[in-house]
Amino acid sequence: MAPNIPEKQWAQVIEKTGGPVEYKEIPVAKPGPDEVLVNIKYSGVCHTDLHAVNGDWPLPTKLPLVGGHEGAGVVVAKGDLVQDIEMSADEPLCPKALLSGYTVDGSFQQYCIAKGAHVARIDKSIPLDAIAPVLCAGITVYKGLKESGARPGQTVAIVGAGGGLGSLAQQYAKAMGLRVIAVDSGEEKKKMSLEQLGASAFVDFATSSNVVKDVQAATEDGLGPHAVILVAVNEKPFQQAAEYVRPRGTVICIGLPAGAYLRAPVFESVIKMIVIRGSYVGNRKDTSEALEFYRRGLIKAPFKVVGLSELQMVYDKMAKGEIAGRYVLDTSK
Amino acid sequence: MAPNIPEKQWAQVIEKTGGPVEYKEIPVAKPGPDEVLVNIKYSGVCHTDLHAVNGDWPLPTKLPLVGGHEGAGVVVAKGDLVQDIEMSADEPLCPKALLSGYTVDGSFQQYCIAKGAHVARIDKSIPLDAIAPVLCAGITVYKGLKESGARPGQTVAIVGAGGGLGSLAQQYAKAMGLRVIAVDSGEEKKKMSLEQLGASAFVDFATSSNVVKDVQAATEDGLGPHAVILVAVNEKPFQQAAEYVRPRGTVICIGLPAGAYLRAPVFESVIKMIVIRGSYVGNRKDTSEALEFYRRGLIKAPFKVVGLSELQMVYDKMAKGEIAGRYVLDTSK
Amino acid sequence: MAPNIPEKQWAQVIEKTGGPVEYKEIPVAKPGPDEVLVNIKYSGVCHTDLHAVNGDWPLPTKLPLVGGHEGAGVVVAKGDLVQDIEMSADEPLCPKALLSGYTVDGSFQQYCIAKGAHVARIDKSIPLDAIAPVLCAGITVYKGLKESGARPGQTVAIVGAGGGLGSLAQQYAKAMGLRVIAVDSGEEKKKMSLEQLGASAFVDFATSSNVVKDVQAATEDGLGPHAVILVAVNEKPFQQAAEYVRPRGTVICIGLPAGAYLRAPVFESVIKMIVIRGSYVGNRKDTSEALEFYRRGLIKAPFKVVGLSELQMVYDKMAKGEIAGRYVLDTSK
Amino acid sequence: MAPNIPEKQWAQVIEKTGGPVEYKEIPVAKPGPDEVLVNIKYSGVCHTDLHAVNGDWPLPTKLPLVGGHEGAGVVVAKGDLVQDIEMSADEPLCPKALLSGYTVDGSFQQYCIAKGAHVARIDKSIPLDAIAPVLCAGITVYKGLKESGARPGQTVAIVGAGGGLGSLAQQYAKAMGLRVIAVDSGEEKKKMSLEQLGASAFVDFATSSNVVKDVQAATEDGLGPHAVILVAVNEKPFQQAAEYVRPRGTVICIGLPAGAYLRAPVFESVIKMIVIRGSYVGNRKDTSEALEFYRRGLIKAPFKVVGLSELQMVYDKMAKGEIAGRYVLDTSK
Repeated sequence: MAPNIPEKQWAQVIEKTGGPVEYKEIPVAKPGPDEVLVNIKYSGVCHTDLHAVNGDWPLPTKLPLVGGHEGAGVVVAKGDLVQDIEMSADEPLCPKALLSGYTVDGSFQQYCIAKGAHVARIDKSIPLDAIAPVLCAGITVYKGLKESGARPGQTVAIVGAGGGLGSLAQQYAKAMGLRVIAVDSGEEKKKMSLEQLGASAFVDFATSSNVVKDVQAATEDGLGPHAVILVAVNEKPFQQAAEYVRPRGTVICIGLPAGAYLRAPVFESVIKMIVIRGSYVGNRKDTSEALEFYRRGLIKAPFKVVGLSELQMVYDKMAKGEIAGRYVLDTSK
Repeated sequence: MAPNIPEKQWAQVIEKTGGPVEYKEIPVAKPGPDEVLVNIKYSGVCHTDLHAVNGDWPLPTKLPLVGGHEGAGVVVAKGDLVQDIEMSADEPLCPKALLSGYTVDGSFQQYCIAKGAHVARIDKSIPLDAIAPVLCAGITVYKGLKESGARPGQTVAIVGAGGGLGSLAQQYAKAMGLRVIAVDSGEEKKKMSLEQLGASAFVDFATSSNVVKDVQAATEDGLGPHAVILVAVNEKPFQQAAEYVRPRGTVICIGLPAGAYLRAPVFESVIKMIVIRGSYVGNRKDTSEALEFYRRGLIKAPFKVVGLSELQMVYDKMAKGEIAGRYVLDTSK
Repeated sequence: MAPNIPEKQWAQVIEKTGGPVEYKEIPVAKPGPDEVLVNIKYSGVCHTDLHAVNGDWPLPTKLPLVGGHEGAGVVVAKGDLVQDIEMSADEPLCPKALLSGYTVDGSFQQYCIAKGAHVARIDKSIPLDAIAPVLCAGITVYKGLKESGARPGQTVAIVGAGGGLGSLAQQYAKAMGLRVIAVDSGEEKKKMSLEQLGASAFVDFATSSNVVKDVQAATEDGLGPHAVILVAVNEKPFQQAAEYVRPRGTVICIGLPAGAYLRAPVFESVIKMIVIRGSYVGNRKDTSEALEFYRRGLIKAPFKVVGLSELQMVYDKMAKGEIAGRYVLDTSK
Repeated sequence: MAPNIPEKQWAQVIEKTGGPVEYKEIPVAKPGPDEVLVNIKYSGVCHTDLHAVNGDWPLPTKLPLVGGHEGAGVVVAKGDLVQDIEMSADEPLCPKALLSGYTVDGSFQQYCIAKGAHVARIDKSIPLDAIAPVLCAGITVYKGLKESGARPGQTVAIVGAGGGLGSLAQQYAKAMGLRVIAVDSGEEKKKMSLEQLGASAFVDFATSSNVVKDVQAATEDGLGPHAVILVAVNEKPFQQAAEYVRPRGTVICIGLPAGAYLRAPVFESVIKMIVIRGSYVGNRKDTSEALEFYRRGLIKAPFKVVGLSELQMVYDKMAKGEIAGRYVLDTSK
């Protein structure tokens, strides 16, 4: 291991479910033969991290735990077996998956261990603070758009279009040649969607008297969008999308509102031959493709940088719904 | 028109919603330029026909109506434009679809009008009484198996395996190289599934203490079937299949229990990346493929022939759930 | 039929194989029950039309023949059976296909007969002279890009990028989120590709010392493009593309150089698991999708309008390879 | 490492290109942290092994080399990192692939090193001598059938149907619900195909006056098979299949005749929209699926067991084309 790797580092540690996180010094681990040690420079903060603190998903969390799964940094050491490997597979579905920042320690620390085969390569031209939030949110929505099967020229409705995932989804959809109907509420989100993110139409679910009709009316032929991307954080849209999607269309579920259920009438779902499909993060190939869109300048993710030491403040804002865009932690502060 | 086509014919007519059907003489229609006149020899009786009598689906029915949509017969006259046309398309999704025996007159009569382009050709070697029930039920389950994306060597669970659709689905699945888990209840259906229809396993939902675990345990690796085919006539299985299907697996909804809803937990559906898909009858290409399996001797549909005049008796048995296999009407009686 | 439809009209007629075309008055036909009469306003001129004059494809041509298959106009009469029908199917593969301007009379006349079901609807906002060339060339390259399976973010090489098909293909590819490597020769085509049509790289096959290496080097990772679109009019590229396409990549053949053969080494083709695929025009659904890209302002096809009476002059230029962009005929002149 | 693993073992070693192989004692290697040591019990002998001896493919071979890639045995030692891993990916396309028995030592020895992640698990109920030949040949043809996209009920032509790959391909095709046209020559192969392997038709390329017409005539509608599987060892069929495959059909290239070229007319390939696709072995998921067909009793691969020491005799027979079925080496002899 290189001599300039310290013995100790700063990290944010969850000691018990419910938090708070503790900012403290912990040892730097040594990589095994198939692992690398990454000097994390920046790490995005995602809702999932708050779920890990609160333990409110049906998944056991490791304790004590270093959270974080949107880290970007530099490989500073590696095991003997690590070479240049890249694959496309369904590894997110692995029944023994280790989830960074949930079931194993993650990126809210200065030096993080990762399997060599699982590390995504980031082109040197890409700034690490800007790419951090793309590493989970961008990949997730890109994968969802791929899974929808919507082809360039077709229309997708993005529900929760003004949030962190939604604003990335709008940009990826546009870059993929899709026409976007943004569904969300409020003048600010409407303006951002239509003027900055390239949506063709905006449906305000709070003021619409009939969301189903309004979404369908926003398509050329009135038959509804070819796909619906659900990145909303409440249950209602998960029970409504099947009604306005086009016959033979696809509803993609990405958001994970706690305790929510999908619901759709059997008769109409069968007669219209619709598809409802869950999509969960992405594999290494999806990651590499999603990063490439960013590298080509097609995606912008608004973010604000604060020190790693300020993580609890970010969680507090998040719990109150006060975050627009994404916070990124600088591990040197 | 050929001189031996009569002016009048016998038919079963629904004069008002709720029935009963009336067996009486009505005029024989003349085909338009793009239509054919078919001398129906046999017609299967399907649950949909009873729904048409009762008007309990969210679809308006024509009145008075000649029901029936599983007719097989001989073309005796055709319009000037009718040639040899065959296509694969999503015509079942046509927003202005005319549904035989529901929104236009159907096959419970001796001479039936049809669009030349929509008529399925039946090989001369195939007996018309035996093929009648395959014309809706067989096509429907064959299409559902195709839509499931399950590949030869994989496993499908068929829920409602012992009914009319289910017993055809088991045979098609086997002929397609799939391994079958039959889900239904009762010793008779178990025996039929395992000994005659080729199922590898049977799960009795009535006696199982945990259907989810039992279906999963019936797969080689315990991860659950690659696809689930829902031909059940009640709501419960539509809310349970998402739990036992394999990650990345597909749940196909075919059955149409009145007023039923699909329901699945968002979290597990997303994490497992499952697909829920409606499948509705089939197009002309599906029809031709489904008939070909029959022609090759791979499919047997048990049926009983009675006269067209006895239709009300068939409906009465159907309403009481007393029919095993399929009734076929002989229009000459 | 409306009273203002004349009995006679001007048309360009091929009386014998090899030409020339004769500009003369012929009768206006009456539509059959499933047909419409279209008052052609503009018609593009395509290389296929010249093949029809010369009869140098292995297809019999009707004689005498009115050529043309890129006509745009207004429906002025229709048969009784014509309603609003739209379908997606493989009709270009129909073994009894009637080919407009090749085996039946086409659009080089003022009033043209067409099957009601086959007419593509053009939005009223679209100028008919501008859309005419998109109706064959645009659809053809759009279909080819669809068939390639290349997804947004991936790279396609377009061979013959500076020609009529190629310049449309570059625009469609960009609108579909694809990265383009333009392959052609000459400074003018290079400039047009990189500065106007949005290509990321240009490989000049005339000056390159190693086209295979240069095309591969123009991809991010050097492994070659995910798809190759062959719209070239000579044989060489059809025998070279398999060498530079990426493993698991697809070579799409669209161009039809007379007497040409595909050729690829078996060993490398198998080891790299490449796909070679023919793509031929498009169906009505492809047409409607391709027009929609135009309507949204994403596609521009440079064209020059001359009178229908000047068709022979267009053919003469075409035979000499002197046409840049597309000629469109105004049937009123 | 277990105490009963010897220091030395018997192996067949290629010391120089062109052979012969030398049967001699060499050291037993020790597995690295991500590797396993397999006590090979049986190993099939494949044409590829002879290509490795002769070095007549465009691939460099390791020297000295232990050949063999169809080994089946028991894991007797493993590195610290080896756990239970299984994935589906395009690993056969890895640009740095290590090819067992070609670029790294293979299975013609008693103790063979393999990457833990690449080892295929074989159910205990399967006899190791019988499964050895399935491990390359069976996987290869199963993968090719999958890649063809042919669906149950459709027709495939298998060219080279009577050879080792072909006779397995016929069985897999049948188990996958496909109708088979066997193409090969001679009465013995005809009888075996029609009576034992389940083919529906046999076309003898040696006696047929028109192979293209005869293959097409063997399909229900005369339009040709939906897919063609080329496992032939000479060039001709690779240049003929495009002519008889059905419009929109797929030609799968598997066989690797030295120096051969694919060839197809551009015009017909485009107009018929055919697909030509290379398919090369299979990944771990394909392997596991192919083995499962065997486990279910649907596949039989005729084989003959001889001692490892007799490998040169097997090569001699192979070079003379005298082998029917497959030879399997017993490493204990």
